[in-house]
Amino acid sequence: MVKLKKVLKKENNNKAKEREKPLIIAGPCSVENYDIFEETVAFLKECGVEYIRGGIFKPRTSPYSFQGLREEGIEILKSIKIKYNIKIVSELLDLRDIESLIEIADIIQIGSRNMYNYPLLKEVGKAGKTILLKRGISATIEEWLSAAEYIALEGNSNIILCERGIRTFETYTRNTLDLNCVPVIKQKTNLKIIVDPSHGTGKRELINSMSLAAIASGADGIMVEVHPNPDKALSDGEQSVNFEEFKSIYKNIVNLYNYIGGMII
Amino acid sequence: MVKLKKVLKKENNNKAKEREKPLIIAGPCSVENYDIFEETVAFLKECGVEYIRGGIFKPRTSPYSFQGLREEGIEILKSIKIKYNIKIVSELLDLRDIESLIEIADIIQIGSRNMYNYPLLKEVGKAGKTILLKRGISATIEEWLSAAEYIALEGNSNIILCERGIRTFETYTRNTLDLNCVPVIKQKTNLKIIVDPSHGTGKRELINSMSLAAIASGADGIMVEVHPNPDKALSDGEQSVNFEEFKSIYKNIVNLYNYIGGMII
Amino acid sequence: MVKLKKVLKKENNNKAKEREKPLIIAGPCSVENYDIFEETVAFLKECGVEYIRGGIFKPRTSPYSFQGLREEGIEILKSIKIKYNIKIVSELLDLRDIESLIEIADIIQIGSRNMYNYPLLKEVGKAGKTILLKRGISATIEEWLSAAEYIALEGNSNIILCERGIRTFETYTRNTLDLNCVPVIKQKTNLKIIVDPSHGTGKRELINSMSLAAIASGADGIMVEVHPNPDKALSDGEQSVNFEEFKSIYKNIVNLYNYIGGMII
Amino acid sequence: MVKLKKVLKKENNNKAKEREKPLIIAGPCSVENYDIFEETVAFLKECGVEYIRGGIFKPRTSPYSFQGLREEGIEILKSIKIKYNIKIVSELLDLRDIESLIEIADIIQIGSRNMYNYPLLKEVGKAGKTILLKRGISATIEEWLSAAEYIALEGNSNIILCERGIRTFETYTRNTLDLNCVPVIKQKTNLKIIVDPSHGTGKRELINSMSLAAIASGADGIMVEVHPNPDKALSDGEQSVNFEEFKSIYKNIVNLYNYIGGMII
Ligand SMILES: C=C(OP(=O)(O)O)C(=O)O
Ligand SMILES: C=C(OP(=O)(O)O)C(=O)O
Ligand SMILES: C=C(OP(=O)(O)O)C(=O)O
Ligand SMILES: C=C(OP(=O)(O)O)C(=O)O
Ligand SMILES: [Cu+2]
Ligand SMILES: [Cu+2]
Ligand SMILES: [Cu+2]
Ligand SMILES: [Cu+2]
Repeated sequence: MVKLKKVLKKENNNKAKEREKPLIIAGPCSVENYDIFEETVAFLKECGVEYIRGGIFKPRTSPYSFQGLREEGIEILKSIKIKYNIKIVSELLDLRDIESLIEIADIIQIGSRNMYNYPLLKEVGKAGKTILLKRGISATIEEWLSAAEYIALEGNSNIILCERGIRTFETYTRNTLDLNCVPVIKQKTNLKIIVDPSHGTGKRELINSMSLAAIASGADGIMVEVHPNPDKALSDGEQSVNFEEFKSIYKNIVNLYNYIGGMII
Repeated sequence: MVKLKKVLKKENNNKAKEREKPLIIAGPCSVENYDIFEETVAFLKECGVEYIRGGIFKPRTSPYSFQGLREEGIEILKSIKIKYNIKIVSELLDLRDIESLIEIADIIQIGSRNMYNYPLLKEVGKAGKTILLKRGISATIEEWLSAAEYIALEGNSNIILCERGIRTFETYTRNTLDLNCVPVIKQKTNLKIIVDPSHGTGKRELINSMSLAAIASGADGIMVEVHPNPDKALSDGEQSVNFEEFKSIYKNIVNLYNYIGGMII
Repeated sequence: MVKLKKVLKKENNNKAKEREKPLIIAGPCSVENYDIFEETVAFLKECGVEYIRGGIFKPRTSPYSFQGLREEGIEILKSIKIKYNIKIVSELLDLRDIESLIEIADIIQIGSRNMYNYPLLKEVGKAGKTILLKRGISATIEEWLSAAEYIALEGNSNIILCERGIRTFETYTRNTLDLNCVPVIKQKTNLKIIVDPSHGTGKRELINSMSLAAIASGADGIMVEVHPNPDKALSDGEQSVNFEEFKSIYKNIVNLYNYIGGMII
Repeated sequence: MVKLKKVLKKENNNKAKEREKPLIIAGPCSVENYDIFEETVAFLKECGVEYIRGGIFKPRTSPYSFQGLREEGIEILKSIKIKYNIKIVSELLDLRDIESLIEIADIIQIGSRNMYNYPLLKEVGKAGKTILLKRGISATIEEWLSAAEYIALEGNSNIILCERGIRTFETYTRNTLDLNCVPVIKQKTNLKIIVDPSHGTGKRELINSMSLAAIASGADGIMVEVHPNPDKALSDGEQSVNFEEFKSIYKNIVNLYNYIGGMII
C-alpha cells in the first residue's frame, strides 16, 4: 500500500471502534419534483431513516438524458429538509456549485465519475462537511485511498468511502460489487465505508441480498435508491426498490448489523 | 439469460427450498503428506466439518511448481477417509484419472481452469457423483451455467456451483469475489452455490469477513483452505487460515447461516 | 517475468531473426461439409494461402450449438488435404482425439479455452507437430508463456503463439485485441506469434484494419476466418470475411509485411 | 450504438476523407523547466514536429507527486511557443484555468481522468479551440463518443479523440492499448482519432511497434512522450523515448502513414 499520511491507520490502532448504528442513506436517484420527493422522504422518515439521498446535479452518460433539476432542486431540498428535519446527501458535480450545495447538504457526495477530479476533491477538502467519496468505476483501492488523501490533505478528514461496484467483464449485473474492499478498508484505514448495492448490482431484485452481504462484510452502512414507483423513475429505476421492499431491507440491515458486531475481527 | 433446459428454474418454482445446515468444505489446498493431512482432518472433524478438501492433482501456472502428490495422494486420501469417516472433495484435472478419483471422492471438483473443458465436463456428467463446478476466472454467469448444463445433459444434476473470485483490474486482492452472482444463481436456477473466499481474496485476513458476506448474500456454504502452518504450505499458504482462525470462522458461519434464513427472499 | 527456461530468450540473442514471408492461416471457423470446405480451400489455395484452418471439434459455450463434424470432419480434411496439397491447422479439444488429429493436421491448435488445460498441453508436448497455442481469454502474458513452457518441457519447442483478443469491459467488440503483447513476445522470447483478428474483434468490418495493425506491431502472421457466405456460417459468421474481402486483406498483409521489415526493432 | 446527433456519421458519408499527413504530437509528459523544455522543442522542431505536448497541470494519483509547474509553466510555454513558432497541446484539469490555457494552447487536452467530467466538457465545448479528448481508462467506446457529444453540443466540433490504453487484468503493460477502437471510430463517426502509445503501454521499448500498429489500424496520428533523459523525468520517464529513439519512430510513422493510405477501407 502506498504511503498515505492521513487516511492509513497508525500501527497500534487496531482495536475496533465502538459500533453505533449503521449509516443508512436512502432516497431517489434524482429529485424529480416536490411531490414525489416529499412522499419518499415522509415514508423513509417514518421507517427511521435519517439520511436522505437525492441527486439534483446528475452526471449522465448521454447529454440527452435527464440532467437533474439543478437550481430548482436546491429549493425543493431546502424546503423538505426543514419540513421533515432530515439530513441531506447530494452529489456535487461542478465546483462552482459548491456554495449552494453546502447550504443544504449535510454530506456532499463525490460520484464515481469524479473520483479522479482532483480540483473538485481539493475544493471539498476545504468545506466543513462530511464527504461521501464513491469509488471510481475502475479505481483500485490504492487510487481510491489516494483520492481520499487529496481531500484529507486540505484539512477535511470527515470522509466516508462508498463502494458502488466496479466495471468488469460481467454484464449480467450493471457492475460487480467488490465487497473484498470492505475488510481491506476497515483493516488498513481510519475511514468509514458504506456500500451502494443499487449501482453495485443495477438490479433491484439483488439489493436485499447484497445489502446483507455488505453489512456482513463489515460495512458501516448502505446507500440505496428508493422510489415510490421505480418503473416510472427518471433515472435508475431498474435498480431502485419500492417502499415495501425498502421497509423489509431496512429491518434486515438493522438487525443484521447488531447481530454481526461481535463476529467482525 | 440463454435457454438452458436443465439448470434454470421452472417458472412457478420460486418458493425457497427448506434450509438445512450450511455446506462447509475445509482442508488444505494440497494434500502435502500423510501427517499434515491427518492433523488437519482430525482438527476439522472435531470442529464438526464433514467435507474435507485436499488437492492431489494441482493445476499450477508454472510447470516448476509443486504439482500435487498424485497417485501417492490417492492412497493418503483413501486411508484417512476410512480412519476418520469423512467425505472427500478433490479436483479432477485429467479425464484419465476419473476412475481413481471416483473411488475416493464424494464430491468431484472441477477447477476454475477447466470450466470450459467440455470433454471433462461431459465425463463427470456420466459419473454418479456430486460435482463442484468452480466458476472460470473470467467466466460470465451465463457461460458458467452453460458449463453446468453440459454436465446435467449427460444425466448428472448433482451440481454445486462455487464462486471463487473473478479476474478484474484490482490487484490488491488476488481475485475479486463476485457475490452478486449468489442471489442471481439462487433466483434463476435449481443449483446450490457455495463460495470460496480463499481463492476469492487471496488473503487470509479477509476470509472471515468474506465468508460472512457470502452467507449473508444467500450462499449455501463455503469452501475454505485450512493449514496447520499456513506460512509453510506448499501452495496457497497466504490465503489459508490456521486452526484457531478456522474455529472462529466456522462458528460464525454456522450461527449466521441460521440467523439469516428468514431474511433471504 | 517469471523464470522460464525454454521459452525466454537468452541474453545475447537479440538480433532479429531473418524475416521470411508471413504465416497466413485462413479458412472457415468450422468445417461444415465437403462442398463448402472444398470451395473455400480451392479459393484460398489460388490466393496463395498454404495453411488452411478448419475446426472439426468445436468448443461451444452452449451444449445446444453446433459441436463440429468430429469424425466425419476428419475424413473431409483427409481427402481435401490430399486433393489440394495443403497444410491443415485444426483444434484439439480432447486428448483422446490426439492420434486421429495428428494424422491430418500439420499444426495442432490449442484453443483459448484450453490454455490452462495442463494435461492437454503435456500431451501435445509429446507430439512431433507444431503447436498453435492461443492465448486464454483472460490469461496474462506470463501465464501464456508458462503454458508454452509446459509444452516445451515435454520436448516440443515448435510453438506458435496466437493472440486472439482478451476479455475486457468493452462489449462493442467481442474481445479486445491486445497487440501490446506482440512486441513483448518478440523481445522476450524465442517464439513466433501470430494474431487472430476474427476472434479478436468479432466483427468482420474490423478485420482488414486489425490485420494490418497486427503485422505492423511485428507479428509473424495472422489467422483469419473466411467463409464463402459468412451470413450462413454455422459458427462465427459475423467475424468471417468473404472471398473478395479476403483477397484484398491477403494482398495488403503480404505487402505490408515486406514493407515493414526494416522498421521493427 | 446510441443515438448521437453530432459525432456519428451521416449514412451516405462513407467516402474516405482525403489523407493529408499524420498528426504527430510529441513532447515531455510534464514541462519541467525552461531549459529541458527548450532543448526538447528545439529537437522536435528540427525533426519536423509541429505540435508539442507538455503538461503544466498534472493529474497525479498521489497528492505527494509532482503536480506540474502550473502558472510558472504557462510562462514557459508562452515564451517557447513564440521563440520556436510551434503549436502547443496541453491538458486542462480545472475549468477555472481555461482562460489562461486558451491563451497559449492550440489544442486543449482533456485527460482520461476527466472524460466523465461533464462540466469541464461543456466548458471546452464553448472554447474556440480544438479539443483532444482522451478515452477514459475504463470508458466504453459509446461513453467516449457521448463525451464528445457533450462537447459538440456546445458548438465545438473540432474534436480529436485519443486512444491511450484501457485498464484490463493484464499488468505487464501499464494499460492495454485498444486499437480495435480505431477502425470503429473511423467507420462510425466524423471524428479524427490518434493513439498515445506512451500511456497505452507504459514501456518505452514498445512504443515504436505500437506507433506503427496504430497507424496501420487507420489512426490519424500519434501522441508520444519524449524526454532528453527519460530516466530523469519527473513523470512517466519509463514510457518516454529519448531523442534518438524518437527520430527513428517519427520517420517510420511518416513513411508508414503514406504507404498504408490505400489499404485502409
Ligand atoms: C450517480 C451516482 O452514483 P455513482 O457515482 O456511483 O455512479 C449516484 O449515487 O447518484
Ligand atoms: C485450484 C483451486 O481453485 P480454483 O480452481 O478456483 O483456482 C482449488 O480449489 O484447489
Ligand atoms: C475457437 C477458436 O478460437 P479461440 O480458441 O481463440 O476462441 C477457433 O479459432 O476456432
Ligand atoms: C496524463 C496524461 O495522459 P492520460 O490522461 O491519458 O492519463 C497525459 O497525456 O499527460
Ligand atoms: Cu442512480
Ligand atoms: Cu489453493
Ligand atoms: Cu471461430
Ligand atoms: Cu504522461
